[in-house]
Amino acid sequence: MNVLVTGNAGFIGSHLTKSLLDQGHTVIGVDNFTLGTKENMAAYVNHPNFKFVEVDIAEVDILIKEVASLGVKIEKIYHLAANSDIQKGGTNPLIDHHDTFATTFGVLELARALDVKNLFFASTSAVYGDLTDIELKEDQGGLSPISYYGASKLASEAFISAYTYMIDMNTVIFRFPNVVGPNLTHGVIFDFKKKLEKNNAELEILGDGTQRKQYTHVYDLVEAILLLTENINPGAEIYNVGVSDDTSVKDIADILCQQMGLNDVIYNYTGGNVGWKGDVPKFKYNTDKINAKGWHPKYSSTEAITETIRWELNK
Amino acid sequence: MNVLVTGNAGFIGSHLTKSLLDQGHTVIGVDNFTLGTKENMAAYVNHPNFKFVEVDIAEVDILIKEVASLGVKIEKIYHLAANSDIQKGGTNPLIDHHDTFATTFGVLELARALDVKNLFFASTSAVYGDLTDIELKEDQGGLSPISYYGASKLASEAFISAYTYMIDMNTVIFRFPNVVGPNLTHGVIFDFKKKLEKNNAELEILGDGTQRKQYTHVYDLVEAILLLTENINPGAEIYNVGVSDDTSVKDIADILCQQMGLNDVIYNYTGGNVGWKGDVPKFKYNTDKINAKGWHPKYSSTEAITETIRWELNK
Repeated sequence: MNVLVTGNAGFIGSHLTKSLLDQGHTVIGVDNFTLGTKENMAAYVNHPNFKFVEVDIAEVDILIKEVASLGVKIEKIYHLAANSDIQKGGTNPLIDHHDTFATTFGVLELARALDVKNLFFASTSAVYGDLTDIELKEDQGGLSPISYYGASKLASEAFISAYTYMIDMNTVIFRFPNVVGPNLTHGVIFDFKKKLEKNNAELEILGDGTQRKQYTHVYDLVEAILLLTENINPGAEIYNVGVSDDTSVKDIADILCQQMGLNDVIYNYTGGNVGWKGDVPKFKYNTDKINAKGWHPKYSSTEAITETIRWELNK
Repeated sequence: MNVLVTGNAGFIGSHLTKSLLDQGHTVIGVDNFTLGTKENMAAYVNHPNFKFVEVDIAEVDILIKEVASLGVKIEKIYHLAANSDIQKGGTNPLIDHHDTFATTFGVLELARALDVKNLFFASTSAVYGDLTDIELKEDQGGLSPISYYGASKLASEAFISAYTYMIDMNTVIFRFPNVVGPNLTHGVIFDFKKKLEKNNAELEILGDGTQRKQYTHVYDLVEAILLLTENINPGAEIYNVGVSDDTSVKDIADILCQQMGLNDVIYNYTGGNVGWKGDVPKFKYNTDKINAKGWHPKYSSTEAITETIRWELNK
């Protein structure tokens, strides 16, 4: 089958692209290296069934022209391109408006122009906003995103809903949790490692360290994507994806220090229960819907963090 | 107080602008006459406290420059500019993406640039999608718009939610129902009148005529806007607005024929229970929240339709 992956040079997109090629599909990757890297593409860039289009997906007309010029009938689009650095997006709403929302609009226009009926979309837990005390199911009401990133993803879901209905598409939306694993390019593990390499006696931790999040391993996530997109039903179906346990920021610091062989590192907390404005300090997913489809993660949250730190230190 | 009204030359915006001037406010109107008209502005265009900026609100940089050049400290923005012709928007997603979504993003960037803290936003029942059998409360989950218009408004709400949190705004969002009254420029009353003026023996009715909708009179709506925006609380508050009864398409045809003095008009139904793709044939609002704030409409749905037809035939 011919499929297109946006953000194929990114963290999750590079793993997904590799797996799709391994399954025998022809993959058209689309990326502009805003966050993606050529290193992430190394594992598959020379694969005979891989084609690459370097373009800003938000530039709709160019996108359609470039992809159409390949002359390939595309059966499925996996849309993963986005600004995945929520904290950075908080500094300027134009970042997520362009990289996270406008890319989705570009993909939808591409699907409309080239008559692609099947779509997978990488959404996020951030669409829910700060609903700390509720076990979040997919049909939760009162969604009030508190970050430009969450807003851009919820806006994307809204447009996907309308396109799916208006031009008869089959769509699967995953609301991603925090994802970790090989090729990770930013986030708390990175920040801590960088700080400890500079000064291994002290570590500044944003917030009070009790913020807990569910971390899912990218290998589990890619398995879920492949499973749920094998046959996509008409309409737009939304799934929470995640693990059942969670890991605190302090736990991450502890695991990292332990694996780096550092003892007695003094933690300096900046205080408060939020890492930065727009961050949702804690959320609890209900994943019954995707579990009922036969997907169960192999890594717990803390295992996923531990494995990622191990990979990061050994690379 | 200095306030800014987007879409001031439109149907609802023109009534709101007049009322705000009557209350003693200075009003900056912003419109580009995509759907608005100079005729709609006739009642206030020469008012000493009225200023006008003709600009496409989606052109963010120009918008900010033009409005800033007035040198007025704006206290409140009423954002009503949008493509209000949902049926037309169904023909091309770019219409609502630009006129309905990008205008909201422009307004939010304007608020951020000029430090405007108070916002009123005209959203729509179309954000709910086709949830026919549910009495819709504001915190209803599973919102799945089926029109590009509904998607653009839900996407707007998502961005408003994030901006409200990130830059500490006070926002009121109304989810408008169908609105009728003087200065109406399109819709079913118009279509029927035009058809009957051409041929008063027969009338083509889209669907099977049983589609029922709640029509709210623009005078009631403007009263609600003024009441709920007198003091806006921090955060983003959403209100359904509407009447408790509804009116079928066939009822509208009957009232129009009767007022035009036409008997024995033969109705030709195109069939099905949907007027056009993306139309939500029927919905039921719960308006307890806004009613508890002291707002109650003076016109029922059928009274609002009857008055509008009377105005239209006598203008």
